[in-house]
This record gives sequence, structure tokens and C-alpha cells, in this order.
Amino acid sequence: MDPSRLQSHVSHPTAENEQDNNHPLINRRIQRLTLHLNPTEAPPPPSSNQQLQLLTCAARGKLNVSTPHLSMYMRGKYRNEQQKVYDFFESRPDLQTPVEISKDEHRELCMRQLLAMVREGGIRPFKYVVEEPGRYFAIAEAAGILDVSFGVKLGVQYSLWGGSVLNLGTKKHRDKYFNGIDSVEYPGCFAMTELHHGSNVQGLETVATFDLLTDEFVIDTPHDGAIKWWIGNAAVHGKFATVFAKLMLPTHDTKGVTDMGVHAFIVPIRDMTTHETLPGVEIQDCGHKVGLNGVDNGALRFRSVRIPRNNLLNRFGDVSRDGKYTSSLPTISKRFAATLGELVGGRVGLAYSSVGILKIAVTIAIRYALLRQQFGPPKQAEISILDYQSHQHKLMPMLASTYAFHFATTNLVAKYSEMKKTQDEELVADVHALSAGLKAYVTTYTAKSLSTCREACGGHGYAAVNRFGSLRNDHDIFQTFEGDNTVLLQQVAADLLKQYQKKFQGGTLAVTWNYLRESMSTYMSQPNPVTSRWEGEDHLRDSTFQLDAFRYRTSRLLHSAAMRLQKHTKTLGSFGAWNRCLNHLLTLAESHIESVILETFIKAVKNCPDPSSRAALKLVCDLYAMDRIWNDIGTYRNVDYVAPNKAKAIHKLTEYLSFQVRNVARELVDAFDIPDFVIRAPIGKQTPVEVYSEYRQHIGF
Amino acid sequence: MDPSRLQSHVSHPTAENEQDNNHPLINRRIQRLTLHLNPTEAPPPPSSNQQLQLLTCAARGKLNVSTPHLSMYMRGKYRNEQQKVYDFFESRPDLQTPVEISKDEHRELCMRQLLAMVREGGIRPFKYVVEEPGRYFAIAEAAGILDVSFGVKLGVQYSLWGGSVLNLGTKKHRDKYFNGIDSVEYPGCFAMTELHHGSNVQGLETVATFDLLTDEFVIDTPHDGAIKWWIGNAAVHGKFATVFAKLMLPTHDTKGVTDMGVHAFIVPIRDMTTHETLPGVEIQDCGHKVGLNGVDNGALRFRSVRIPRNNLLNRFGDVSRDGKYTSSLPTISKRFAATLGELVGGRVGLAYSSVGILKIAVTIAIRYALLRQQFGPPKQAEISILDYQSHQHKLMPMLASTYAFHFATTNLVAKYSEMKKTQDEELVADVHALSAGLKAYVTTYTAKSLSTCREACGGHGYAAVNRFGSLRNDHDIFQTFEGDNTVLLQQVAADLLKQYQKKFQGGTLAVTWNYLRESMSTYMSQPNPVTSRWEGEDHLRDSTFQLDAFRYRTSRLLHSAAMRLQKHTKTLGSFGAWNRCLNHLLTLAESHIESVILETFIKAVKNCPDPSSRAALKLVCDLYAMDRIWNDIGTYRNVDYVAPNKAKAIHKLTEYLSFQVRNVARELVDAFDIPDFVIRAPIGKQTPVEVYSEYRQHIGF
Repeated sequence: MDPSRLQSHVSHPTAENEQDNNHPLINRRIQRLTLHLNPTEAPPPPSSNQQLQLLTCAARGKLNVSTPHLSMYMRGKYRNEQQKVYDFFESRPDLQTPVEISKDEHRELCMRQLLAMVREGGIRPFKYVVEEPGRYFAIAEAAGILDVSFGVKLGVQYSLWGGSVLNLGTKKHRDKYFNGIDSVEYPGCFAMTELHHGSNVQGLETVATFDLLTDEFVIDTPHDGAIKWWIGNAAVHGKFATVFAKLMLPTHDTKGVTDMGVHAFIVPIRDMTTHETLPGVEIQDCGHKVGLNGVDNGALRFRSVRIPRNNLLNRFGDVSRDGKYTSSLPTISKRFAATLGELVGGRVGLAYSSVGILKIAVTIAIRYALLRQQFGPPKQAEISILDYQSHQHKLMPMLASTYAFHFATTNLVAKYSEMKKTQDEELVADVHALSAGLKAYVTTYTAKSLSTCREACGGHGYAAVNRFGSLRNDHDIFQTFEGDNTVLLQQVAADLLKQYQKKFQGGTLAVTWNYLRESMSTYMSQPNPVTSRWEGEDHLRDSTFQLDAFRYRTSRLLHSAAMRLQKHTKTLGSFGAWNRCLNHLLTLAESHIESVILETFIKAVKNCPDPSSRAALKLVCDLYAMDRIWNDIGTYRNVDYVAPNKAKAIHKLTEYLSFQVRNVARELVDAFDIPDFVIRAPIGKQTPVEVYSEYRQHIGF
Repeated sequence: MDPSRLQSHVSHPTAENEQDNNHPLINRRIQRLTLHLNPTEAPPPPSSNQQLQLLTCAARGKLNVSTPHLSMYMRGKYRNEQQKVYDFFESRPDLQTPVEISKDEHRELCMRQLLAMVREGGIRPFKYVVEEPGRYFAIAEAAGILDVSFGVKLGVQYSLWGGSVLNLGTKKHRDKYFNGIDSVEYPGCFAMTELHHGSNVQGLETVATFDLLTDEFVIDTPHDGAIKWWIGNAAVHGKFATVFAKLMLPTHDTKGVTDMGVHAFIVPIRDMTTHETLPGVEIQDCGHKVGLNGVDNGALRFRSVRIPRNNLLNRFGDVSRDGKYTSSLPTISKRFAATLGELVGGRVGLAYSSVGILKIAVTIAIRYALLRQQFGPPKQAEISILDYQSHQHKLMPMLASTYAFHFATTNLVAKYSEMKKTQDEELVADVHALSAGLKAYVTTYTAKSLSTCREACGGHGYAAVNRFGSLRNDHDIFQTFEGDNTVLLQQVAADLLKQYQKKFQGGTLAVTWNYLRESMSTYMSQPNPVTSRWEGEDHLRDSTFQLDAFRYRTSRLLHSAAMRLQKHTKTLGSFGAWNRCLNHLLTLAESHIESVILETFIKAVKNCPDPSSRAALKLVCDLYAMDRIWNDIGTYRNVDYVAPNKAKAIHKLTEYLSFQVRNVARELVDAFDIPDFVIRAPIGKQTPVEVYSEYRQHIGF
């Protein structure tokens, strides 16, 4: 390896860059950001020498990245909102979560964090849940980056409990509960999951029977398998719970009641004054968890708990005084879909927050890898571990994926906000499948990456103060809650198959699926493309080729899955056929999500106004594309979409691009613009005054 | 999926099986085991009906596994030794680690566990460290399965601190320290790692300067980067430390001292009576860690600490009263290699214990997957989640790998014990490379699997009581300590390349490498085998084909790595060339380790005396082989070792074998023979009285 290539370049805005942002406001902004990002030095005036260097670097295939410009492009609409959260907590060290804390203390601390932010900091996210979801998600992400438990505690209060009232209830509920939820006078729970039923929500067994005599619902846990389990805010703080239960209406036939399907009910669980558990409600503490111990998950059993009829969240279905059921939706399954559909915001938020956590971990791991030196050429100084090919292989595609996910989830949030405004039916379907897919894909990737980051930081990554432990443990459940990832990917696959059928029936495709029309036709007419032996860097880095490769894979998987399902359904029935093809279907869903991510990334590269940032993003995007193609090279080879020489070229290019990205890795993580106060890990801060010193001081040396 | 195939079979020893073990002692043993494993029912007498069932099942490709027979074969030589440990701790609930415990309490508890086991339980593992390592590892594994911190605490005392005295010292050290170490009167540390140097042990900077006037060594930390860091037993309990430092001898030239390389010294760090830190020694607490918080890791700084000359552990190098250096080994690097070579036992122990942890996790995840039901065919009962193809895909290859690793590490322990006895040079080289490779490969695999198991158990996997959190957090560092996995794999690759050169120079190959001679020749003469299109199940399940595939891959990677290194060395130098090929070299090392694991597994299948167990092991071994080949199908396809039709057949067979293994999954995990008291997780015990009941009771319902 050419040692001269191993040096990274400290970059500053150059004259060339400045020309692209000649608005004085933007320039001032960038200058401030530069100072923020490089506090020890103001940006030097651009010199002809630097311009020369830029050209030389470009000629040698290196990049000179302007972190402030890139950061400006990345920070998004609500970054200031997040800064407010950071500023408030930076001013309140008493609210910072310590490295070691017991479960009980952590629960109290998270509640204090929430109350302080809302009541003292004046940051009140509740109204944004419906009105401006992007702003809400930004606040929730910032809270989660400070302490994932705090982020989830906030999410339980506002998105789950509060969101169920706003989205499933009607005006009367909003009037009665809005202020109490907003100010956390009414801390609440979202009681859906039961001991025996998580993913299969339609299988819930808790019942709410209407009592005509008293105009009340009677909530009952019919057996211990139906105990509400894992209910956040229930063990300690909750006063209310939105309880999901089968609505039973009295009938005059021999059965006595009719099951109207799962509905949501507001059930008070603790006394507003004494905080004592109300009669008929039994609450137990779910106890210590792998992570998120700042959230008080509890289990709830109901023994004939009576609530007024008005406590039914009646947006999609109502019961009149005389026990008649009314709904604008014709069937149980449509009402069920509408009810669950309103909860999709949780998935959007999780995907988005997961990327925030990934950014923190990637930042710490890369900064440490630049700092840490171990071994080196004989009789020379040791080299940074990020100069090892193996370390680049671990971290650079991960950095590229983080960028890819950043744009994908930002785009999802924008779509979701648009959907909340317009309620456009096509957009609703699009957001549903996209949020399921991105939540599953991103959280699985982040979970794996958190382990890789810890391992990449060796022993020092094992110090709790460097955060990988708590980040991993807290994030872990992102793969499970708000929809198990394996189940969510199946929803994506099912949706793709529906779209596939539509295509052959001439219908319109959902927005995100649109690419399938063209790529499916291409694939069907030309399964072995002429490009299968092309191996030039220009070709491989051409986004047309990259998108085509991703889409070809999805189209092929979709076509073959449809064929296989058709074949097996004849003998195994639809459930058996689905199960027989399940691995295939999951791969299909992942492939589709990757196609969507790449497409969004390519657009983001094109839209970037600053040329140096655009070049950096293009490099990162190419690495993302190559890494993903190489990751499933077996499939591409098997169908001869890629010939052996091309496969080899893709592998070589992946390594080369990892090396190139390594050369601007510092700038790329700086551009995430996460303040040192938020990073916290001594080995991961932006500008260590002296190598290791803060980390050493942390233990007392 | 044919529903009749979804039922698992409860198996009992049949007449046919009994015939193979007709020794009365063995039969009694099996009967006892059967009772132990199925406490509710005694083995029924074999009936002709059962024999018929066995035949029918066999004809349909299903297996009837006798758990007791299989367990007998698996349990190994020292299982009774482990039972003693389990029995002692089962009788002492006061010593069981609770689900939630603070760092400080955990440290004290681990020390109490160790002292109680040794002094009250009479289980004293120290003498086995050298005399009978297999017995030592079995005790350490049992301790680690009870609480990984306890296992590591024990390992620090006996294998690291004690082992350094026995292996690097001479008779005088043994005489002086043996009893104190054995009884834990002398708790000690192993002070090798420094803040700036972990993997690069030769780069350690602590110095031990010989003072001719006082006949002492003076231990010094020259700067803060050389502070000893992560030293287990140092923060609280240690009285002594084996300190690794550069031995400096006075000379009469202008430099004043000569660096004789890294040596080990016994340094008292705390007063034997008052337990106060001794003068010149500064100790800080490394604080809270991601896991293993029962071990008190500390940091040590030395300020001219004087120790008698006798405290040099002088097996490989000594200093006389007049300051002359003597050694049977000629160079610094040879002495360094000999010193580190003695520490290889730690790696053997880690690989072995890692499999123990993997067994626990796999057992819990599989038993839960059999228990948990979610969704099902329309209007039918829900099915077990292990009946989903995706779930089989997650857990069945993992179960197969666990079996594979069981035999691989058992074999490693046997080789290591043999090596300790014979000191045979070839065996030494073999054990060194094999222990490095297996430690790296197995601990990486286990770390990933622990996350997968948690995820596979959904929300209930997130309850701390179900253990995935602590197992993962505690095990995590297995990838780093006793040699970073990436560094260890490079040692394996380097060794392979040395062997490769030898081959072409006509020398002998180390035992484990022997296969390379033949497969390299085959590969060189016939790069595209005629079998590349063979896709029959008989062929794919033929262990000759499987071994050939694994070895072909290793040989090809080895040959191409050698060529590439040669080419790049000319322009980049040897360090640069190595780095340029690093990903390739790591893949080579992993491929080799997989070849060794498969070879050991195939032998273990052949050697199994009981036919039903042998059939089960063969099935599991085939799944292991197919899964690994499929895992790198891109490489096999690229070199056309496998044609597209064969690749497809391998994939199909992997899914089919996963399904087959699922049908005997319960028996296969039962055969690990881990008592419920050791499993502890309510969702993972062998015989839940009522589904979920213990788990429910755990939180108070």
C-alpha cells in the first residue's frame, strides 16, 4: 500500500466551494458551522496553493471534502429543533444518565428527563405527532440519542399512548386528554401485546364486553396467556392505558355476544391522586431487561374493570347507547387494518431513530480507528488501525450504509408527513410498506453494526463509558417492537406480490414500486444482459448500472417467488406455500428495500448543490452499491447477470472505494454534526486535546 | 408444507440401540441418564411397534433420536467434574448471581463464588492447569456457564496469574506461590496489556531495569500510554501481578542499558495484611464495562517499584547476580515466542467455553421456538414458530455449527493436553495455529449467534431473566482478549503460507495442515472438477465431496494469496503487500478453520457407536457442510467449482436439511445435557410444567 495514500486530508472550504453558496446568509452559516466543527481554528482564506492541492488530489482520485458544506446539506429541516434539546440537557448535568445506574433509578431519571424537557425546557412535542411529524421525530431522535430509554419513554407517552388517542379517538377524546398528555399530567400506556400474542395482533384475547344496563364496557383478561405484557409506562408511572381488546356486543341469540374484532379503549389504571392501582386492575413489573431499563414495562391483568362507553376510541367503529355497532368501514378486517394503519408512525420513528444511533456508533468507531495505532512496517512508526484493509472492510461500507439510510429515512419522514396531511390513498399504501420495510431493514443492520463497532474498538470498546454496550442493548429491541422484523418483511413481500399481480392486470403501481414495471419488462425480455462482462470502473460506478443491478435482482426474485408460490399453493395451500418460500420472500423484501434505498441515495447525490460534497456523496453511494452487489454476488453469478471477470472487478472496486472513503472518513463522520456532549464516549469525541487523555482521566489517571 | 412432517418425535432407546451398548454398566448409565433427561417417565420397554415406527420414519427420511445415547457420546470425559460444580452451586442459592446486580456487588459475589468453590466445595482446579488441562477447562467452562464473570475470574486467577507462574517461572516460583494461588490466599493479576498496546505485545513500554547494587529490578511506567490497562483482579482483589516489561540490563557503553525484550515479573501490588496498595504502585478502577462486571479490571502505574531479582519468571531467560543474561534461546524474538507460546492455553479455554455459552443460548432459543406459537393456516391452530422456514434458517444451521464446534474444541483440548505432556514440537506448532484459529472463528460465530438468539425469541428474549443480554455482554470480549480475532486469523494465514512454502520445498506439513498437500495437488491439476454439475442428494451428502469442497476453497485461496503477496511485495514491501491482501488472507484463514472443523465433525460421526445417534450426527454434519458452502457460494460459482444447477441444489438441500434437523431439534438440544438449574431462563427449560407458567410466575403473576 502506497504510504502517501494513507494520509487523510484536513479539509476547509475552498474558494471554489464558496462560489456555490454565495448567498451571504449561507456563508455566515457555514462559517459558524466551521467554527463549531473545528473549534480550534477558523477557516483559513483560500489560497492558490490549496486549489492546486485540490486539483492534484482530484487527479489522483482523492477528494477534498468540505465538512461544513456537507453537514449543511445533511442536517435537514429540524436540526435546530434537536439542538434545542441538546442545549437544554447540556445545561442540566443533573439529568444526564450516568454510565452505571440501577433499573429503579434509571426509571425515575427518565421520567425526570421527560418532565424537565417538557415543563422546564418548554419543548413540547405532542402537538407535532399529527401536525408536523417530522418535527416530532426529530425531537424524539434527539432524546433517544441522549439516552435511548428516554427516547422510548417519550415515544410511549406521545406516539403510542398519545398517538392512539389522537389517531383512533375522536374530538371528545382529544378535548379531554390532549392537555394532560402534553404536560405529562396523564402518563399513559399502550396495552396491545399479550403474553401469548405479539405479532399476531388479531389473535389478542382480552375482551371488552358492552353492558347495556350500565352503559359501560367490562374489560377482562380471560386467562393468563392474555395478560398484557411488556407494557411501557405500566410498571411505575402510567395513569391510563389504551387497551386493545375484542369488542363483544350482547346479542339476542343463544351465544349471547358477538365478537366485533379488536378495538382500543382508554382504561384508567391508577388513581389520579393517590397513584394507587385501581380496583380490578393488577399490575406486575416485567423486571430487568436486556436494555431500555429506563422504561418501566409492566404486565396488566383485568378483572371485570368497568369503563364508560365513551372510553372506546371510536374513530373507526362506535357503539350506541342501545348497543348498536356503527362504522364507516364494512368489515372487521378493514376496521382492523385502519386501526393498525394509524400506528405506522411508530415504525417511521423507529427507522429514523435507529439511523441516529447508528451514526453515533459509526462516529465513535471511526474516530477511534483513526486515533488507535498498532503495528506498522518494520522500524517505522505504528499505523492507524483504519489503515488496515480489514478495518476499512468492517467500517467503510457501514459508513456508506449510514449515509444511505440517512437519506432513505429522511425521505420516509417527508412522505409520512405528506401522507398525514393529504391522506392520499396511494401514499398511504406506499408509506405503509416502505415504513415496514425500512424499519425492518435498518434496525437489523444497525443491531449488527453496533456489535461490529464494539469489536472494532477492541478492549477500549468494552468500557461502558464508550457506549457500545448501552447502545446495543437499548437498540436491540428495535428489531422486535412495533412489528417483528421478520413479520414486517413478509408484509413487504406480500405487497410486492400484490403489485406484481396488478402489473399483469394493467393497474397502477404504488409510487415506490414504479420501477418494477420497467425493470420487470427488461428482465423478462433480456435475462442475460450484454453488460454482464463489462468491468470498467466507469461502468460499475454508473448509477444506471447500479440501479439496474439492484432492480434486476428484485424483479427476478419477485418473478420466481410468484411462480413458486403458484406451484406450491396447489399442493400445500396458501399458508403452506408461503412458508415453503419464506426465505425466498424475505430475500425479495430486502432486495426491494435496498433498491429503494439506492434510488433515494442517487437522487440525494444529484440534488446536492456543493460540488465537493456531491463528489464525496457519489463516492459513498458507489461504495454502498458495490458492497450490496458483492454481498449477494452468488445470486448475480448464478443467473449470469454478472460474469466471473465482472464479479472480480466488483470485489476489487469495493476494496478500492473503501480505501478512498477511508481517506475522507473523518470529514464524513464530522458532517453528521453530533456535538461532543452528545457523543460522550471519550474515545469518540471530535477533537481530543491529547490522544487518550480524556479516557485516561475518566478512570482517575 | 406437509403438516404431518411438522411433528417432532419423542424418542426413547429402542431394542436396536440397546444392542450396540450391551455392556451392563453402560446400560445402567444410560438408564440413569434417561431418567435425568426425562424425569417424568422411565424408558418404556422397546416394542415391535416402536421398531416399526423407527423403520417407517427412516424410510421417510426422518430420524428417531435417542437423546440418552447421543448425550452419552457428547458428554465427554470430564462431564462428571462439571456436575460436581453444578451440584455445589445448586446447593448454595446464596451464591447464585441475581438477574440485576450492581458492579460492586457483582465483584464481591464472584470472589465469594470462587472462594466457596475452592474452600468449601473442595473443587481446586489449579493443579490441573498443567497436569490435566482437559479437567481444568471443564471446571472453568462449568463456572462460566453459571456466570461468565465467575468463569473469567477463575481463569484470571488460575490460568493467567497462576499459569504464568507455572509456565514462565521455575521451581522456586512454584514452591513459593503454588499453595497461595491454589487456595486463593494469593489472588493475582496478569498485567500485560497497556493503554497504548494490546495486540502488539512486543510494543509494550513498561520497563524493568536491573539494579546491580541492590540485586533488584526496578519497574517503571515511562509514560501514561504505558499504564497497564484492563488488568483483571487489579481493581479490588489482587495481591500480586505478573507484569510484562522490557528487561533492561546495565551496560558499560554510553547508552547505559540494553533492552533484552519483554519478560514477565512477579510484582506484589497490595499489602498481604492490610490490603493497602504498596508504595510506588498506583491502581485505578477501569470502571463499568459492557459485560463481565463481576471481574474487577484495573489500571496500574508503577513508579520505581523495586522487586527482588528472584521475581523474574526465569524459565526462558535469567539474570545472574552480576547482571549477566543467560538463556537457552538465542534471540529476543525466540524468547518472546516461547513466552507467549506458553499462554496458548488461554485461547484453548476460551474457544471451549465459548461453545458452552453457545449451547446455552441455542438451547433456550430452540426450546422457546418449539413452545411459542404464532399465526397458522386459516381457521386452524397456531403453529410453533420453529415450523417457519425463516426460523429454521436462523436456528438450525446454528445448531449444526454448535455440534461442529463441540467436536472441534473437544479435539483441541485433547491435542493441547497431549502437547503439554509430550512437548512434541510439531504438535506445539499445530496447537498454536489451531487454537488461534478456533478461538477467533468460534468466538466470532458465538457472538453473532447470541444476538440472533435474542432476536429469535422476540420480546420474551429481551427479559433479562432469559439470559441473552448477560450472555452476549459477557461473551462479547471473548473476541478481543487473549488475542484480537482479526490478529489471530492473520497468524493462521501466516502459518498457512509458511506451510505452503514448505510444500514446495518438500518439507513435512503440520498435522492439521496435512490435507493441503493432497488437495493443493488436486486443485492445481484439476481446477474445474467434473463433479461441478452433480446435484444428487447422495453426492452432496457424501463427506468426500464436502471435504473436497472445503479444501478446494482453502487451497485455491492459499494459492492465490501466495501469488498476490509475491506480486505486491515487489512494489509495496512485505508489510504493504500483506495489508493489500488482508481481506483475502482473513477469508483464507476462516476457510482453513472450517475445513478443520468439518474434518473433525466427519470423524466424530464415523466414531459414534450408536446407529441412531450416528444418523442424527450425520444429518447435522451435512447441514453444517451445506450451510458453509452456500455461505460462500459466490466463490464456488466464480471458479466454476459449482455450476448453477448445483448451486441451486445446495440451497434447496440446506433448506431441506434445516427442516429435517428441526424435527429432531428438541432431542439434539436435550443431548447437550445442561441441567435446568444451569439454564435458568424460564423460557428455555427442558420440561415446562405448564407453558409459560414459570416465566409468568417470575414477574409475580
